[in-house]
Amino acid sequence: MKIISVEDLTMLIERHGFNAYLLDLIAALRRDFARWDEFAKMPRPGIHVPDGILELMPISDHTYYSYKYVNCHPKNPALGLQTVIATGQLSRVDTGYPLMASEMTLLTALRTAATSALATDLMARANATTLAIIGTGAQSEFQVRAARLVRDIQEVRYFDIDPAAMDKFEHNMTSQNLTLTRAQSAEEAMHGADIVTVCTACKAHVDVIKNAWVKPGMHINGLGGDCAGKTELELSILPRSRIVVEYFDQSAAEGEIQRFDRSEAKKHTYAELHELISGTKTGRHTEQEITLFDGVGIALEDYSALRLTYELATQYGIGTEADLTPTLADPKDLVALLQQSKVAA
Amino acid sequence: MKIISVEDLTMLIERHGFNAYLLDLIAALRRDFARWDEFAKMPRPGIHVPDGILELMPISDHTYYSYKYVNCHPKNPALGLQTVIATGQLSRVDTGYPLMASEMTLLTALRTAATSALATDLMARANATTLAIIGTGAQSEFQVRAARLVRDIQEVRYFDIDPAAMDKFEHNMTSQNLTLTRAQSAEEAMHGADIVTVCTACKAHVDVIKNAWVKPGMHINGLGGDCAGKTELELSILPRSRIVVEYFDQSAAEGEIQRFDRSEAKKHTYAELHELISGTKTGRHTEQEITLFDGVGIALEDYSALRLTYELATQYGIGTEADLTPTLADPKDLVALLQQSKVAA
Repeated sequence: MKIISVEDLTMLIERHGFNAYLLDLIAALRRDFARWDEFAKMPRPGIHVPDGILELMPISDHTYYSYKYVNCHPKNPALGLQTVIATGQLSRVDTGYPLMASEMTLLTALRTAATSALATDLMARANATTLAIIGTGAQSEFQVRAARLVRDIQEVRYFDIDPAAMDKFEHNMTSQNLTLTRAQSAEEAMHGADIVTVCTACKAHVDVIKNAWVKPGMHINGLGGDCAGKTELELSILPRSRIVVEYFDQSAAEGEIQRFDRSEAKKHTYAELHELISGTKTGRHTEQEITLFDGVGIALEDYSALRLTYELATQYGIGTEADLTPTLADPKDLVALLQQSKVAA
Repeated sequence: MKIISVEDLTMLIERHGFNAYLLDLIAALRRDFARWDEFAKMPRPGIHVPDGILELMPISDHTYYSYKYVNCHPKNPALGLQTVIATGQLSRVDTGYPLMASEMTLLTALRTAATSALATDLMARANATTLAIIGTGAQSEFQVRAARLVRDIQEVRYFDIDPAAMDKFEHNMTSQNLTLTRAQSAEEAMHGADIVTVCTACKAHVDVIKNAWVKPGMHINGLGGDCAGKTELELSILPRSRIVVEYFDQSAAEGEIQRFDRSEAKKHTYAELHELISGTKTGRHTEQEITLFDGVGIALEDYSALRLTYELATQYGIGTEADLTPTLADPKDLVALLQQSKVAA
């Protein structure tokens, strides 16, 4: 069983190239969403705790089973800790044996960005060049990097309620050959934006962006409405928008559409993302319409990221082997492990 | 974050002592079941695949969140692999940060045996001395070792449809100062038994033990009725028995009581195990009655095992540190991991 540490993953991405990794991940997501019906899926089971939520995200097709453990604790940064931390595992379906355990904090940022990019590619105007980022936390740079792989982004307008987070974003993005426009408010960041990506952490129903700021032709990636009790768009934005979700059964409980009851949410939801990929439905119908990707993050995305990482790690010989599963001469002789250690006698 | 490999765990048990570990685990289970209402619980989400099942088992109290990944693939031994393989993780509830990832194949055998022992202690006759083991697979020796810690077991009668598994069991148990009686059938193994522990792997409704073989005063640990479509007791045994389950919501779908519809199952179930520990209900009312612990294995048991292991590993300095979670100077500067590797430029 392979273990992929944070260091292993950064080495893997360095070896493969950051953009190449993101492009491969977007392609993997496209392939995996396209075979939607091959996956056994469920809305992720979560346990709400006083300062956040703890979730498990399992999924399988006929070959691999994957899961991710992930939290969301918005108060963590005040303690010097990250809001979101994740780990995960990829196993064989035929035997149940684990193949790889991996860090998934970085992988989560990568797959969330790749999924937004995929949705953006399917929904934003083809001539979009200006991207607004509302919330310049841990995920923001990944979002920008991935968006540039699907649209010719020239300007990034950004805002965060934490000025230090904006400083950090600016520092990280300076070398990226982009016009960077620091805004004094979310409203200002959205001026003239073709694409608006909202990714904030507050666990409440917050109007991070207001309906009045949303202009015809915009595409919105609403990423921070992602667990029960956590949304970030003013409610009146939703009926104006062509809404696409990843997986209705999960999004109805976690996405922006959780503000509606289930049947209302169904009415307001135009499609699941895989329907845009299969071509059953079209992401954008007119230049003037407002499109909204109400992304919550689903296990399929983690599956794609884990599988790609497993394949690349195998190719590059990255990761360490750990005996988290016993190797037995006789598979029914488990206690032999202890007898070898002379403890059973 | 600590990693506990199979080798680490065997070293830990060697250091602490096998019986001492089992006794501490039984005590931990007793404490944790006693504070049942402090845990956020859910029936384990499972994905059925052609040759088995893949499950996640999450739970949390106010301090720790734990989960286990576990499969059950009855055809694995024919491939030289184990039927059940498990891994798991313990995290902090306040921040969501993982504390330990561990092998859990061995831990599962240990906690299943400790839970049976706890149930046996609460339900079997005080003067029980003869134990029948039906199914001498990977778990069987653990079951015997744990049972001896709660009752004065003098004779173990055993049967398996696989003679090699019986040979293995006999080999492993020879040094244990017990009368070992190899039976030619499950019926013969049950002759004169005070306690009958049934732990087989076939994923079907199988009558591994028949009603006619069950005698007054017996206590049965029925452990292999543990997922939808998998039971091992003849149905007519159930109405004759005082049935105790771990957690009704999960057992109704997975235990022997799955053979009834939910309301019938409710009627046939006398108690949840924690009610015997708190003293709300009594495990055994007469010397003549038949008691049945319909054990399926719940996340609480894995929690107890992971927590005990974490505490002992910390005490003994066992396990290796792995960076499966990033350490960042600025918790919002995740992309810095890649910039340090010069890949983001």
